[in-house]
This record gives sequence, structure tokens and C-alpha cells, in this order.
Amino acid sequence: MSGRLLLVPNTLDLGAADATLEDVLPLGVLRMAASLLHWVVEDARNARAFLKRIGAVTPLAHSLQALQVNELPRPRKGSREDIPLSAWSTLLEPARRGQDIGLLSEAGLPGVADPGAALVQAAHDAAIPVWPLAGASSLTLAVAAGGLNGQSFAFVGYLPQDAAARAARLRDLEAQSRRLVQTQLLIETPYRNAALAAALWAVLAPGTRVSIACGLTQPRGWCRTATVAQWRAAPPVMPDTLPAVFALLAA
Amino acid sequence: MSGRLLLVPNTLDLGAADATLEDVLPLGVLRMAASLLHWVVEDARNARAFLKRIGAVTPLAHSLQALQVNELPRPRKGSREDIPLSAWSTLLEPARRGQDIGLLSEAGLPGVADPGAALVQAAHDAAIPVWPLAGASSLTLAVAAGGLNGQSFAFVGYLPQDAAARAARLRDLEAQSRRLVQTQLLIETPYRNAALAAALWAVLAPGTRVSIACGLTQPRGWCRTATVAQWRAAPPVMPDTLPAVFALLAA
Repeated sequence: MSGRLLLVPNTLDLGAADATLEDVLPLGVLRMAASLLHWVVEDARNARAFLKRIGAVTPLAHSLQALQVNELPRPRKGSREDIPLSAWSTLLEPARRGQDIGLLSEAGLPGVADPGAALVQAAHDAAIPVWPLAGASSLTLAVAAGGLNGQSFAFVGYLPQDAAARAARLRDLEAQSRRLVQTQLLIETPYRNAALAAALWAVLAPGTRVSIACGLTQPRGWCRTATVAQWRAAPPVMPDTLPAVFALLAA
Repeated sequence: MSGRLLLVPNTLDLGAADATLEDVLPLGVLRMAASLLHWVVEDARNARAFLKRIGAVTPLAHSLQALQVNELPRPRKGSREDIPLSAWSTLLEPARRGQDIGLLSEAGLPGVADPGAALVQAAHDAAIPVWPLAGASSLTLAVAAGGLNGQSFAFVGYLPQDAAARAARLRDLEAQSRRLVQTQLLIETPYRNAALAAALWAVLAPGTRVSIACGLTQPRGWCRTATVAQWRAAPPVMPDTLPAVFALLAA
């Protein structure tokens, strides 16, 4: 019997630990995470801190020192090409011996706007069962909170840094949103939240609706949806330390 | 002080109740739901059954009989046009009096592939704070579990029923996936899962990767990713009672 690759949800606070663990993750998920010996994670130090938080809720089956925590190899340019296939195979070795492996990213679900997909793909290719444990993604929470179109939406990641390229990309996304009646979701590194918001007001049409969801599940969080014209009249103070999800729907 | 519109996640089992509540929803969310008096829901009977399940975990602050449970008005064609604006205003009345309202759909997050977005929109328009509680959506769980592109993905809802129209739409989505390197997510009514799967094998290119996630968070659930050529060689037995999410990524 093969072990499984279990996709373990993380909190959405990026380790700020200002949300109570039991408020944001199911108890069953915390217990399952507490039982695992083998981990593949984005960052070993942060993963151990997360497991320590879990240990305060439900006892860990293995001491933090005993845990086998491996980091995901980092491809040079977000591509899988550079990583030799044997690297994935080595990481999946415990499952081949019948033991479950936990895959964890820095926030939310592994492989969703986060690394991990290549390992999941390798598990499918090796017929190792993959199973996601129930947890939140800031992207779908933002869709729910925005009240824009939740029957058709796309997550498109980060915009280019260069101002002209970013404006061109935003116009493309607005056109796509209008054509498909599809909500477009973007994210940005927190310290660039204000710059992205300013670009939205500068580039998008006045009637396009924009939703901003900041610090989801966190005590300081907020979310608001308004037209670009309304946002221009009363621009928000964008926090530079809270993760934010931006959504737009063209009129 | 205005009350809030709290977006309350439901389980993903559509009331089958074969998953343990504490395995799929955070305890803090169950406690918050147990404290609410005012609800707006997709289906009142199912909502009361859900709250009864919650009451077995954490005591309800109000008896089931005392709860104020209103159903979302159903527009004729998924459009908000038919619903008079006053209907949303009436549903939001408790928040105007300072009391929180819970919004609940039949599965997962309200407003994500489910009704509820129009009420959320009305709350934003009325400056009533909207706040999503942490919960899973089958769509982002399926993205994580599929191992396809999780840096760019789109949920496009249901395909047309008519075979020719469905094939044309699938070809469009495959072309879109190839052009944007974007995972495309589809859903179907469970009893049509097998028909949709057959259409995927018939229409898509052999090298396109297809991920199927059935019964997520449920004991009988499974998920698997393979190329269309591989699926054709070993077609899956599609359950006709478990909800499934289909994802494709063109080669």
C-alpha cells in the first residue's frame, strides 16, 4: 500500500500568528498534520514554526527535532525544467514505503499561487494518491467577499513591475473581463499594494468594479467593493504588511 | 454600529454528512455560526439541517425554531435584474440595526459557483461590512490536488448540454488554456459527470492534461491527473452522486 501525498492548508497570515489557529483551520486537519512524520515544505524554518503552533492545540506525534522536513527545490524561473526528475522521486520516497507525506506552502493551499504543483504532478505520475485537506485559499475567499461574478473568474497572478507593461496588462485583463464577463483576480507583494491600487485607479474605466480584500481571516483585515470612480473619489489606505487580493469586473 | 454580513462556509458534501464537521470546518467558524440569529441562505430546510449538525458540536445560541432564516430570492435566469433592489435591502435590515447576518449556500463558499453575490454586492453598496469566514472551496482544493498550473487558472462553470455546443465550448477552452497557459476548471451536476468525462476524452487533444477531483473532503473521494491519451486508455468510473471538479491544461 502506497502512502499518500496530503496537501496541508496553512493559515493566511504568513506566520503573523494574529489569527487563532482553530478559527482558521479545521481541528481534523490540525490533528492529521500533527500525526505526520514526513514533510515537503516551501520553507523549513517557517514550517517548523507552524507545526509548533499546531502542537499547542493538539500533541505532535513526533518531536519537532524528529520530523523529516525537506524543502521544495526552487527552479530558477518558475519552470520545472531545471529540477531533475529524480529530485521529485526522492521527495516521494516515504510514500513508496507506505508513509504519508504532508505538502505545505507558506500560506493557504500548496500549489495555488504557491509552489508545490510539480511535486503533486510527480505524485500523480507515480500513482501515489494525492489528497487535499480542507482549508481556505485567499483567492476564493476574495471571490466570495467581493460580490463580483463568482460563476466565472480567473486568477492571473502578479502584474509586470514596469509601469507601461503593467498598464497594458491591466487593459488586457479589463478587456478580457468585459468579453467573458469574468472576474479577474490579481495579487501583489504587500509592500507594493499601494502602487498596484494606484495603477488600477489610473488605468481602468470608471465603471469597472474593483474589490480589495486585505488580510483575510486576520483581525485587522477588511474588504470592500466599489467602482473605479468611487475608489478614485475616496482612495483606500493600503496596508503594506497585509497580503491583499484585488479583483476587477468590467461593466 | 452596523452589523456585518458574514460569509459562512458550508461543507462540500451537499448534506451527505459523511464527513465529520470538525474535519472540514474550523471550530471558530462553527462557534461563530452557532452564535448567529439572522441568516440568508440558499435553502432554508438544508440550512437548518446544517445548523443542527453544528449544534451537535457547539451549542446554538438560539433554538432552531427561533432562528430567522430567509432564502435568497431566485432570479429567473441567474440575472439580478428581476429582483427588486428593495428585496436585498430587506434582507440586510438586521445589519442596519447592528446585528450580524450569516450568508450560507448549499456547499463551500457563498457566491463562489453558488448564489449570494448579489446580496454581497448590495451590502457593499450599503456600506455594510462584509467578512468571509475561513472555509474551503472545492475549486481551489481541486487546483491544489490537480498539480496543473496553479499560478493561472479560471473557473468557467458549466458547459452547454447540447453535444455540439459542448464540444465547441471545450475546444475554445482548450485553445484559451494553450494561449494563456491557464488551467480551466469546470463543474457538472453529479449525475452528468460520466457524460462530461466522455466528452473530454472525445474532444480534447491527447496531450492535454485533465484532472478530476471527485467528492473532495469526503471519505469516498479521489483525485487523479493524467493526459487525455492516458484517460482514454483507462477511463475512470465516474460516480453519479459525488460532486466533481474537472480541470484541463493544454500541452
